[in-house]
Amino acid sequence: MSLVIVGSVAYDAVKTPHGSVDRMLGGACTYIALSASYFTKTGVVAVVGDDFAQEDVDLLSSRDIDLQGLERTPGKTFFWSGEYSDDMNDRTTLATDLNVFADFNPKLPAPYRAEPYLMLGNIQPALQRSVREQMNGVRLTGGDTMNYWIRDYRDELLETIRDWDFLLINDAEARMLSGEYNLRRAANTILAMGPNTVVIKRGEYGAMLFRRDSYFIVPGYLLEEVFDPTGAGDCFAGGFIGYLAERGCDLRSGHVDRRDLSRAVIYGSVMGSFCCEKFGVDRFRTLTRDEIERRFCEFREFTEF
Amino acid sequence: MSLVIVGSVAYDAVKTPHGSVDRMLGGACTYIALSASYFTKTGVVAVVGDDFAQEDVDLLSSRDIDLQGLERTPGKTFFWSGEYSDDMNDRTTLATDLNVFADFNPKLPAPYRAEPYLMLGNIQPALQRSVREQMNGVRLTGGDTMNYWIRDYRDELLETIRDWDFLLINDAEARMLSGEYNLRRAANTILAMGPNTVVIKRGEYGAMLFRRDSYFIVPGYLLEEVFDPTGAGDCFAGGFIGYLAERGCDLRSGHVDRRDLSRAVIYGSVMGSFCCEKFGVDRFRTLTRDEIERRFCEFREFTEF
Repeated sequence: MSLVIVGSVAYDAVKTPHGSVDRMLGGACTYIALSASYFTKTGVVAVVGDDFAQEDVDLLSSRDIDLQGLERTPGKTFFWSGEYSDDMNDRTTLATDLNVFADFNPKLPAPYRAEPYLMLGNIQPALQRSVREQMNGVRLTGGDTMNYWIRDYRDELLETIRDWDFLLINDAEARMLSGEYNLRRAANTILAMGPNTVVIKRGEYGAMLFRRDSYFIVPGYLLEEVFDPTGAGDCFAGGFIGYLAERGCDLRSGHVDRRDLSRAVIYGSVMGSFCCEKFGVDRFRTLTRDEIERRFCEFREFTEF
Repeated sequence: MSLVIVGSVAYDAVKTPHGSVDRMLGGACTYIALSASYFTKTGVVAVVGDDFAQEDVDLLSSRDIDLQGLERTPGKTFFWSGEYSDDMNDRTTLATDLNVFADFNPKLPAPYRAEPYLMLGNIQPALQRSVREQMNGVRLTGGDTMNYWIRDYRDELLETIRDWDFLLINDAEARMLSGEYNLRRAANTILAMGPNTVVIKRGEYGAMLFRRDSYFIVPGYLLEEVFDPTGAGDCFAGGFIGYLAERGCDLRSGHVDRRDLSRAVIYGSVMGSFCCEKFGVDRFRTLTRDEIERRFCEFREFTEF
């Protein structure tokens, strides 16, 4: 194993202009792990209730995801329900039932503690920090966050991300965290908070990666049909850190190959684009590494000049 | 000479969060011509009033722009006034005084009629068509349009663009013209209307070029400070067609070099980005081709992987 992923495993109800699903596997940890599993051996740290279905365990296992850290607790699994606008650029949360996730206190199984790569999905910053502290000599830590933590848990968040190698964040959150509208300035402000790398997700417009000495921008993949964007950002995270782990990258050293970083952004974008092609995690039931490589080549074709 | 440009020459009053200017040279034709002049010899077809200042004539002449087609009429030059929102993504038009432009009936000077490249700035579709009909065997025609013509002059617009090689349009207009939200589908629908090439401008998010068999996408250049976005789309147009003219491209033939097209999009983006760095046309008072080439290389650096 090489990558430990912490975050939510959930059931989602989603409505998009293409249809609706009442209950399907979801959660940041789930999407990150499924996506990263195409690049490296991953293990998850999360909690589910006693309603968690065997077929969902089987899906994760089929991608060779280690489940020692998937805690089962009496009660119901985290449930989220949302509805997308007609253009799918906005979504309204209809329900967030934390259930067993309310008391989530991540404890790493012993074998996970020595792993070199750590991805902290969007949970309370103090919990993210406690996970990192349980690791022995982790080589690369990345994490996600959201507007709620930025607004109401700012000090805790700042203390947490100080030790991260990369922060993954969307454009609105980057502006909120930095107080800068311009994304180049926003990124510079965030780099001064600790992370040596900031990745800004821009939804359909693509993604940007910033370091002190360079930056990289890729436009979004043009799908003819966006079926369900749920989890696309987490799949980006999985592709990004999964590829860095596959390549054995260490972002803190001065010798990071700039191409590895740029390609990690492309793999992130590729994985996010596949995620939107079907409801929930469905695309990962059939997706192959060959398809991923073909789409990577497509990115090269439509951006090269 | 090689490129004929038709459109408005105007005076603008602009207010942005960085300041305001009561009266400055503007108009689509002005921006397109200044931008294209770095790549090819251009001539303009436009009308101004007797208030048109000698210093503005001098600026155009300093860029070696042919002014035989710049008609002078008693009365005032077209005047436009607008104010940008704090994030500069929206603008409100405060005044549109057509003045001498109201009776604009473009007549091409005899020497212009045999030129190979024609760029039709955003004016009434029937006038755009009449200009094209005055040309003898033009090799490449491109044009711009806007929501007003799409909504209220749809049939006239469709009859006009049928003969164009490329249509340059922003994302909202592409959706409006095609009735498709998805830009890939929107582009396919527009390609079926006649143009062999559709270029979709996405403001700060960059630009896309579509042909039947290929597409190209570039993210926007990340300026640390957007001073005044007025004219950026027209400068994109100037860089795009200017570079195609410099390369002698013929979009209708099957032998267009895909790289020429992609690079034309990059040069368009480069020129649009420079335009935003100062108020109005001010950046063009000092801009050099060397600076343009350096920014072209920057685009390569931040998009290559």
